[in-house]
Order: sequence, then structure tokens, then C-alpha cells
Amino acid sequence: MSSAPSPKAVVLLSGGLDSTTTLAIAKRNGYVVHALSFRYGQRHAIELEAAQRIAERQGVAEHVIAEIDLGMFGGSALTSADLSVPRDAPTGDRIPVTYVPARNTVFLSFALGWAEVLEADDIFIGVNALDYSGYPDCRPEYLEAFERLANLATKRSTEGGQPLRVRAPLLHLSKREIIELGTRLGVDYALTTSCYDPGPAGDACGHCDACRLRLRGFAEAGLEDPAAYRDRPAVAR
Amino acid sequence: MSSAPSPKAVVLLSGGLDSTTTLAIAKRNGYVVHALSFRYGQRHAIELEAAQRIAERQGVAEHVIAEIDLGMFGGSALTSADLSVPRDAPTGDRIPVTYVPARNTVFLSFALGWAEVLEADDIFIGVNALDYSGYPDCRPEYLEAFERLANLATKRSTEGGQPLRVRAPLLHLSKREIIELGTRLGVDYALTTSCYDPGPAGDACGHCDACRLRLRGFAEAGLEDPAAYRDRPAVAR
Repeated sequence: MSSAPSPKAVVLLSGGLDSTTTLAIAKRNGYVVHALSFRYGQRHAIELEAAQRIAERQGVAEHVIAEIDLGMFGGSALTSADLSVPRDAPTGDRIPVTYVPARNTVFLSFALGWAEVLEADDIFIGVNALDYSGYPDCRPEYLEAFERLANLATKRSTEGGQPLRVRAPLLHLSKREIIELGTRLGVDYALTTSCYDPGPAGDACGHCDACRLRLRGFAEAGLEDPAAYRDRPAVAR
Repeated sequence: MSSAPSPKAVVLLSGGLDSTTTLAIAKRNGYVVHALSFRYGQRHAIELEAAQRIAERQGVAEHVIAEIDLGMFGGSALTSADLSVPRDAPTGDRIPVTYVPARNTVFLSFALGWAEVLEADDIFIGVNALDYSGYPDCRPEYLEAFERLANLATKRSTEGGQPLRVRAPLLHLSKREIIELGTRLGVDYALTTSCYDPGPAGDACGHCDACRLRLRGFAEAGLEDPAAYRDRPAVAR
């Protein structure tokens, strides 16, 4: 008996909680995973070390780290030494300075190029429309617009073939639901890093937007976050 | 009397005939130009030297060369040493191997990020729907989809403000019309390079798709192409 070959997918992998859960979902759904990370001028490379450990542990077919420089244009606290990461700022009021201009558009564009070369029909991205810090490029209508663009941008659109799909399985999940799902899929969240301002050993600050969303998610799921914190707030806010 | 400041534009500049003409049009229309080029794993860097000379000569506010690696995924004769550039192949039959997967999508994504930081409302790109070698990411519907995406992707979409425009002033012009327009605007085409397979001194091959489209355009305009060719065909085909 012959069986159809497993479909390929490009999975954007930052080394954080969301993208790691997304990778586990792609694996569970039977995809052969080609993981893509970026060295994009972020101030710390700890998340890339995390991505490498996760890619190894989860058994991807291939893991590529693309070198791009998004810092050259400035404009974000995540890539610029001139702007500092806010501590304990109220979330959701406006787009924070940690927003990197056009970051997801750039990341998805590279994923699109790779998907075309691999003849993969699916790109997975771990964006989330609920606990998402208000970034415009995490909204459902943004992802739909990218999928539309992708199907016009590439050879498949003029030579026929399966349309490309941008899959965002976390889009409508809360942080709590993401953590619960990943835990069921066997994700080891100790490997993941979410902090915008980690210490030299990779320990999370406990006070940036990303830490606070993450800690609140674990608290709501009734689970202990296994990541290392240099200052773990007693109550997640 | 006070006057409004000149609007800013990001102009994608490859160093070729089309992008150089596009830059001249943006300048003529009163924009302060921020030119953006890419070192993207192309096999020859001659076009970047051309882009630098053109940016200087045309008086841009700033010229940035972004370092990205599109070659890592393979799949194109322009970035891969394993594939050779075709000579004297019939044009227009199918997408040629010189197509780089998702190239314009990646380039426009970077332009979008820079435009957001600069607070520029316009991105200029020299794509052309007539003499375009059949690349899917040069079609009007592709550019419209990118503009739509751009207006969903960025802060301007959630914080109000002017929509971003993707301007492709050459879209519906023939190569002949582009050359005639650029010549009226004072473009020095001797500075530009179009060849997919140039010699070490930057001399054009005269036989690749790009050379043949260019030579035919000059012939139809009744002008002599001032670029250096190592083998200039007697009759443009």
C-alpha cells in the first residue's frame, strides 16, 4: 500500500510560547515542518537559541535562520538601543514602542519565498488576535490580505496549482487556551522565551508586556510557568 | 510665506533602467527621495554599484542598501550558482528561471517598514506590466493587493492618517516609452545596468531577457543605448 507523502509547511518560529505551540500544532496535523527564524537586529539573540533548541526537540525537517536587518530603519524598542522597553505599562491603550514596523509582513514574505521553492502549500504563524499587544499586523483582516497577496505574488498563481494558505491556529485563542493546548501536545515551555528584556542568562524580566501576558496565561490555566524569571511578580497582572 | 514641506517617498532602486527612471519621476513630482536597494544574494553586485552612482547623481536624501539573503532558499538563476542564465530564449512563454521567489514582496515589505518610520506616504517601484518577463509579482492586481495589505499592516491603519500608496508609474508604459520619458527627465542611462549576466567590468551580455528587452526599447525609441555591451547584437530581437 502506498500513502500520499506528508504535506510540507513553513512555520515561523521565534522561540516564544505562541510560535512553539503553533509548531506543535503543525506537527500534530501531519505536516513536515520547515522552521524559519530571523536574526533581524533584535537586541538580544536569546530567542534564537531557544528557537534552535525547540526545532531540535520537536523534530523539524529543517531549520533556517534568515539574516535580515530590520534595525537599520530604527523606530522600535526591540531593535533600537535608543528606546527602552517599558515596564509595567498599561496594555492595550495604544501601539507600544516594542512594535517593529512591518515585521510580520517581512517575515511572511520570506516564508512565502521559501514555501514557493519547497512547493509547500501552507505557512503557519503564531499570531493571536486577543492577547496581542495591539499590533496591527496580528489582526485577522491583515492575515487574509497577506494570503490574498501571496496567491497573486507567486508562480503558483499563474501556473495553476493549490492555493497557498496562511494558517494562524492561535488567532482566536486566549493565552490560557494556547498554554492548555500546547501542554496537551507535550510542548516543553521551559524551552521557550517570551521576554522583551531578558537578562544575560536568558532569565525573563517579569515586567514587560510579553512577560505579563504570559504569566497571566499560566496563572489562568492553573499552571506554573517553567521558564526562569529574575523577578517573578507574586500576582500576575 | 510658508510652504508645506516636500513629501517623502521610499523609492526601490535596483540600478536598472526602470527603477532609475522611476526615481527621476519621483524627483520630478517633488518628492524627497529615500532610495532603498538590496544586497540579496544576487550573483553579481554590479547593480549595487550602479545604484550608488545613480543615487548620488540624482541627489537623493538618503540611500540605504539592505542586506538580506534570498539566495538561502535557492530556486532562481539570479541567486543560485547551480542554475545558469538562459541566452536568447524566447520570452513570454512561461516564467523564466531568473524569477526570484517572492522578491518584490520582500522588497516592498522592507520599503513599507522604512516608510512607516519615515512617515512617508508613498512607495515607488519600477515594475512594468508590459515588458516584464512574465513575473507574477509585476502585475497590477499584485500591486493593488500589496497596497491593501500595507494599509492593514501598519500603525497608520489603527491610528488614522493618510493611506499609504504604492506608486508604479511605469506600469503601463512600454520599454520604448520608459526610455523616452527618462531621456526627457535627464536620466543618464549609461549609469544603469540591466543585464542578468554581466562581465567583470559590468559590461552587458546582450543576450539575456533583460538585455534583449532593453536593446529593443532603445531601438524602438530611435536612440543608442549608452551602456557597454561585450556583444551587442546587430538587430534587437
